[in-house]
Amino acid sequence: MLSSLDKQMLERVADLHEIPQGAYNIRKNGVGVQRNTTANIDIMTKKDKPGIDVIVKPYTKGESVHIPVIVTEENITDLVYNTFEIGAYSDVLVVAGCGIHNCGDQKSQHDGIHTFFVRKGAKLKYVEKHYGEGDGRGARVLNPKTIIEAEEGAVVELEMVQIKGIDNTLRDTEVRLGDKAKLVVTERLLTYLGQEAQSKITVELNGVDSSAQIISRSVAQDESRQDFYFDLIGRNRSRGHIQCDAIIMHAARVLSTPRVSAYHSEAQLIHEAAIGRIESEQLVKLMSLGLSEKEAEETILKGFLA
Amino acid sequence: MLSSLDKQMLERVADLHEIPQGAYNIRKNGVGVQRNTTANIDIMTKKDKPGIDVIVKPYTKGESVHIPVIVTEENITDLVYNTFEIGAYSDVLVVAGCGIHNCGDQKSQHDGIHTFFVRKGAKLKYVEKHYGEGDGRGARVLNPKTIIEAEEGAVVELEMVQIKGIDNTLRDTEVRLGDKAKLVVTERLLTYLGQEAQSKITVELNGVDSSAQIISRSVAQDESRQDFYFDLIGRNRSRGHIQCDAIIMHAARVLSTPRVSAYHSEAQLIHEAAIGRIESEQLVKLMSLGLSEKEAEETILKGFLA
Repeated sequence: MLSSLDKQMLERVADLHEIPQGAYNIRKNGVGVQRNTTANIDIMTKKDKPGIDVIVKPYTKGESVHIPVIVTEENITDLVYNTFEIGAYSDVLVVAGCGIHNCGDQKSQHDGIHTFFVRKGAKLKYVEKHYGEGDGRGARVLNPKTIIEAEEGAVVELEMVQIKGIDNTLRDTEVRLGDKAKLVVTERLLTYLGQEAQSKITVELNGVDSSAQIISRSVAQDESRQDFYFDLIGRNRSRGHIQCDAIIMHAARVLSTPRVSAYHSEAQLIHEAAIGRIESEQLVKLMSLGLSEKEAEETILKGFLA
Repeated sequence: MLSSLDKQMLERVADLHEIPQGAYNIRKNGVGVQRNTTANIDIMTKKDKPGIDVIVKPYTKGESVHIPVIVTEENITDLVYNTFEIGAYSDVLVVAGCGIHNCGDQKSQHDGIHTFFVRKGAKLKYVEKHYGEGDGRGARVLNPKTIIEAEEGAVVELEMVQIKGIDNTLRDTEVRLGDKAKLVVTERLLTYLGQEAQSKITVELNGVDSSAQIISRSVAQDESRQDFYFDLIGRNRSRGHIQCDAIIMHAARVLSTPRVSAYHSEAQLIHEAAIGRIESEQLVKLMSLGLSEKEAEETILKGFLA
């Protein structure tokens, strides 16, 4: 059922050389094509709208759920609603990459709306990788919306990566943290040519002793444009830290609008943003080691986005 | 013509124990009451609207212009437009404090719209101090708008201080920097009770090798609310740095929304914001030296806003 192109796309977005261990659901061109469930993780097709419900039983440890989406045709507009119930005291990895291979002239678009309920004491690592390819003129568009409700003591690690080939993206991430809940977000973004990327991350520190750390790194090349919106809201005794670094090259534009709002005298919120070019000292050093300017640049960017 | 209350208010806002040296224009309750000009600095009443034109001749060095405004009555709504021509290669100090003493029940408000043309190679230090007092229930409201156009090689230092007694303020500052122009902004703000303060600072780095540094420190106490908006825009090879620190106490709220926008690959923009409470270590240290908690707190806040 999966062609060699399909397998290549799966590898790009979910590091899947083979069909994964554990639970998975593979969606291709708007249709579910393969699914596996385990004793602890159930996946059910939603009845009222497109998408799936993923149910992780309480105390499930060390299991993973892969839900890659691949789009290999032009003129696809796919919208899914996926809901994740991450049971109390479980510890799971969810990988939700999306790859678009568009060789046609029509736009292909995938919009995923993912809602996570991370129950008391649960640990969730959620990885979202986006990748586009294909030599057609058809645009590759991905608009992920992620909503995370983290209950008391929950730990959520969020890794969002878009390295290549997405022409237009609007990422929207909303996280609400309960008492002692903890969030770590890592965002990596590279845009080039005329690509546009917008990322909004809203974190509400609602619970006492909740904490959030957001580290965003991006590279904007050519004529591309990046817009970042961060909204860090402290409503209780809590700590939040946003660090946002961008390398700007050529005729690219980077706009960053972070908002830090303290509604509580024991909310401690820090924001740091830096937009700049590649450090020339670093370039010179690598070139003195024998690299060409282009190679030196690539090495620095690779390290920056690692 | 100036009463002892007037003199006290002048001291608060312009450190004027005596009538100042150099050029000055003292405005009281909506009317100009005293003026002095010098050979190099002229002050003229505007003909088309309320306010003055201040003309500093090119190459004027080491002179100052004081334009304090005092409001000692209730139910005053004063709006002035002041325009400053800071001649090429001059080096001057402009002090524009405003003090409101309101013992009545009606609001007293002063809105000043100040436009500066800082010509080639000129140095301007502009100090704006705001102060309110009076035991009436009438609100003390100050809304300064400051527009600065800095030409090639101009250096502008801006000091904005609001320490006490202003119930409601909306500060709006816009600066446009030409080639090699340099801006340093220092903002100090303290709010308490139900006071509200909003500060918007927009800096456009238009010229090649222009630079801006903005350091904002604030303390929000009681039920007061502070909103900060910073907009740092790099349109050329340039450097910009915003540092914004707030101490939040009691039931106060502080919202900070900085925007950094790079439209040029050699624009280097940095923003740092931190909102937090008084460091308990510092408190404990001062209290171990014999200070009461209140004294220790006051010492720390005084140092922070110095």
